[in-house]
Amino acid sequence: MFIRRPESVEAQSVQMDGVAGVSMRLLVGKSDGAPTFSMRLFDVTPGGHTPRHSHPYEHEVIVVEGEGRVEHNGSLHPIQKGDVLYMEPGAMHQFTNPGPAPLSFICLVPQQHSCGESVPGS
Amino acid sequence: MFIRRPESVEAQSVQMDGVAGVSMRLLVGKSDGAPTFSMRLFDVTPGGHTPRHSHPYEHEVIVVEGEGRVEHNGSLHPIQKGDVLYMEPGAMHQFTNPGPAPLSFICLVPQQHSCGESVPGS
Repeated sequence: MFIRRPESVEAQSVQMDGVAGVSMRLLVGKSDGAPTFSMRLFDVTPGGHTPRHSHPYEHEVIVVEGEGRVEHNGSLHPIQKGDVLYMEPGAMHQFTNPGPAPLSFICLVPQQHSCGESVPGS
Repeated sequence: MFIRRPESVEAQSVQMDGVAGVSMRLLVGKSDGAPTFSMRLFDVTPGGHTPRHSHPYEHEVIVVEGEGRVEHNGSLHPIQKGDVLYMEPGAMHQFTNPGPAPLSFICLVPQQHSCGESVPGS
């Protein structure tokens, strides 16, 4: 067992095509011995966004601070602190923070997809 | 995709041996089509506790409100709002709210363990 404060985990700038102003903290992951799924905290600066992409695995998300919007297959939806969100495998999606305040959300992913392929950032 | 407010999900009283004052809301689960892991919100009233038990699958936990304590294999540890906790498979554990305020935490579980056995409450 461990108990961890999110702020004690090093934030890593997310470097991917189509990303702006996003950092990630791996709160619980493979490197901790977690066997099935991983918990990551994302901070998105005002004006920032995650990549617009799709992948063959799901997200389960908890918005922990701020407001923003999420795209799901071409439609935009507002999100705010306290919302819980499920993004199904294969959906085109993107999280955006139009500002003015920081947006933070916890995003959980399975560690494997498609019968053994590793999920990035897990 | 769906976006859900936790308070919009029906709370179910947890009826198990060794449980007192605990309700659960299934925020994301099998019934939503989530394929790998499930997200549940637990509310523990002052004086309440989850069962003292172990099982062959992990928990990943986010404390969202209040304070309490967790037992891990006979040792007690304080927990508070904002803490992230990983409980490994096979550990004896229990969450307790000594009071005076409510304790709420999100607890995620895999949907299967031991090569296909279903996880309760997922």
